[in-house]
Amino acid sequence: MVSVAIMGHGVVGSGVSEILTTHKNKLFNSLGEEIYIKYILDLRDFPNHPLKDRFTKNFDDILNDREIRVVVEVMGGIHPAYEYVKACLASGKSVVTSNKELVATNGAELLQIAKDNNANFLFEASVGGGIPIIRPINQCLVANNVSEIAGILNGTTNFILTKMIEDGMDFKDALKLAQELGYAERNPEADIEGHDACRKICILASLAFGKHIYPNAVLTQGITNITLKDVEYARIWGGVIKLIGSVKKLPNKKIDIIVAPMFIPIKSQLANIDDVFNGIMVRGDCTGDVVFYGKGAGKLPTASAVVADIVDSIKHLKTRKYLYWVDSDNSSVLDYKESVTAMYIRANTEDKDLAYNKAKELFGDIHILDNTGSESQKGEIAFVIEPMKYADIAAKIAVLENENICVQSQIRIGDL
Amino acid sequence: MVSVAIMGHGVVGSGVSEILTTHKNKLFNSLGEEIYIKYILDLRDFPNHPLKDRFTKNFDDILNDREIRVVVEVMGGIHPAYEYVKACLASGKSVVTSNKELVATNGAELLQIAKDNNANFLFEASVGGGIPIIRPINQCLVANNVSEIAGILNGTTNFILTKMIEDGMDFKDALKLAQELGYAERNPEADIEGHDACRKICILASLAFGKHIYPNAVLTQGITNITLKDVEYARIWGGVIKLIGSVKKLPNKKIDIIVAPMFIPIKSQLANIDDVFNGIMVRGDCTGDVVFYGKGAGKLPTASAVVADIVDSIKHLKTRKYLYWVDSDNSSVLDYKESVTAMYIRANTEDKDLAYNKAKELFGDIHILDNTGSESQKGEIAFVIEPMKYADIAAKIAVLENENICVQSQIRIGDL
Repeated sequence: MVSVAIMGHGVVGSGVSEILTTHKNKLFNSLGEEIYIKYILDLRDFPNHPLKDRFTKNFDDILNDREIRVVVEVMGGIHPAYEYVKACLASGKSVVTSNKELVATNGAELLQIAKDNNANFLFEASVGGGIPIIRPINQCLVANNVSEIAGILNGTTNFILTKMIEDGMDFKDALKLAQELGYAERNPEADIEGHDACRKICILASLAFGKHIYPNAVLTQGITNITLKDVEYARIWGGVIKLIGSVKKLPNKKIDIIVAPMFIPIKSQLANIDDVFNGIMVRGDCTGDVVFYGKGAGKLPTASAVVADIVDSIKHLKTRKYLYWVDSDNSSVLDYKESVTAMYIRANTEDKDLAYNKAKELFGDIHILDNTGSESQKGEIAFVIEPMKYADIAAKIAVLENENICVQSQIRIGDL
Repeated sequence: MVSVAIMGHGVVGSGVSEILTTHKNKLFNSLGEEIYIKYILDLRDFPNHPLKDRFTKNFDDILNDREIRVVVEVMGGIHPAYEYVKACLASGKSVVTSNKELVATNGAELLQIAKDNNANFLFEASVGGGIPIIRPINQCLVANNVSEIAGILNGTTNFILTKMIEDGMDFKDALKLAQELGYAERNPEADIEGHDACRKICILASLAFGKHIYPNAVLTQGITNITLKDVEYARIWGGVIKLIGSVKKLPNKKIDIIVAPMFIPIKSQLANIDDVFNGIMVRGDCTGDVVFYGKGAGKLPTASAVVADIVDSIKHLKTRKYLYWVDSDNSSVLDYKESVTAMYIRANTEDKDLAYNKAKELFGDIHILDNTGSESQKGEIAFVIEPMKYADIAAKIAVLENENICVQSQIRIGDL
């Protein structure tokens, strides 16, 4: 029997204790041992919970109990999760977490403490919910040099975009529906501004390239400015708009990382990932593209990933898992202005012919998106430019604006 | 430094030694040790190979060398792969293989020998080539009761079907093209008759349900009878034809397993997996549907999966990986005649109205696939029936045939 402690009894935490109870036999068969929930840490009272005798409000109960070799952190947020996890790892306890904010912010430090104390720090559930992704990248793709990872990493925004694309709802209505269905929080900022996706792509980038990439180094754009016009132009172009977290290792070793809405061609494996689902593409030099798809959030999917890590921690109480990356100062991250991208541009103009000619003069080969017969296209132009540095695009857009060609929208083209 | 031996220097074997050479640093960083290829077993001569001094024709060199702790079997076929693998495992050496025929035929026995001798027997590359699937099912989804696995498991047939669907090539021409491109072998039987897919779904079923399922217990249909007419009716129905390996655990614990071409709705994640790519859907009670996509074959994708297993074996020289299933007598496999399925049926008839009325009388609610205006639909009917036992479908088809309504095609409907 192995005793574990669960810190946090919210959505994911209650899912973890539920799975450990309902899947007891399955887990016993896999592990050859019983997993016993000895403590559940939560400041709230749960007087009617079947495990009510296991609840504690005192973290020291867990820290000081030498029987506890694996601690689950599913509180969320940085404080006190960070302090608790650090203390557990420092005392040689393995920690399993679903907390993407914690891993994205303090992963390198916590992995180092884990290593120094021969403990494991595992976080499969922090990216992609129930989708296996951390372990596959770390283990299955170990014989690959990963050159790129790109994914739909946030289910809330993918649901909103799907409603805009398939049902013609505008952003506000789609957000409201997402909130009504419980897919978006009352304060949806972390999702719709891209911060959640940013944390996840940072974790994947750190894992794939072996160096911590911090969210503050990553250009992060949300979907709040996406309009139905843009959705329609994407359709004309031959694709859909998705919020993509993307990281590439360039030949000069720089890391090109971004979170932004992108035009994705309809034939891409990521284009057909709809609603609250997530999909992650990993490009390896030996495997080529591998894509992982599934529910990126939710109580049981996320909790089942946590429980898989608990099982793995217990299997590796003596020999550590080889999951590790070093800290870094973000100096390997490419300045987003240096990043090369193709771009969709939509602008208001009073003279379309003049505006197109000006655009051609500035950008060279452009692909005009002609919404023939559409009333809404009166007084505007839309086109896609060939790949160039973002700094150059911005400079050319400034020239357009000087000519009274007012750019309303610019969305990157994902080469996925 | 860890010494390994590679048995077989064909496509995959040469890929393994290539990756161990080209990715030396990456692997060293992950493992903290160098992997040294001490032997390559092959009956042929490779006088110009850079590792020519490592070649041997004598298996005993490997078996009797106590330095060799990990042996790679990439010879293919059952003999002598089976005898060699058995001998290695019995002597406590871990074995990594890409040989799906061996695993599907002798997996339970070899896993037991591995367990008895505290060695590992790993075979990530045997299913899905470079796509991580064995390890994710075994580790990441451990906290799930898997109810169903379904996948496009054979790239050759998927390429052929894609050419039929997208380019209107008929089966023979598409097969010929696949052979010209090196996607199909000169004797393509194992692919086009479904045997390759059958071995793979058997391995996945054994892994997910913990009991060996042998290929001879599985109804296996290939794609040789698929016509462009069927492809067109699938389009009218709203989907595509894919060769699917599918296994479900029924509420009565019976295993419903089959390899057959199926109609797949266009919205399914498996419908958009084209060309030589593979895709595998795993349905867990906690995660919901998870899909894995990538190159299911090829030298480097497959070899990279083998190398990942080599790394894992080396990390687990002392503590065994928990990969195991017990032997079985196939008694848990449902008789295919008892299997419930919806079905597309196409039949020749001289009187369409009469034929449809007869079909309705026999099958109840049918969904007529009306190829309006198509010359080719003259003298034939096509419809989809609601799910029922295959034995009942077969009996009703016999009645149709007695009425001179001659069934040309019956293809299952995949509920994916």
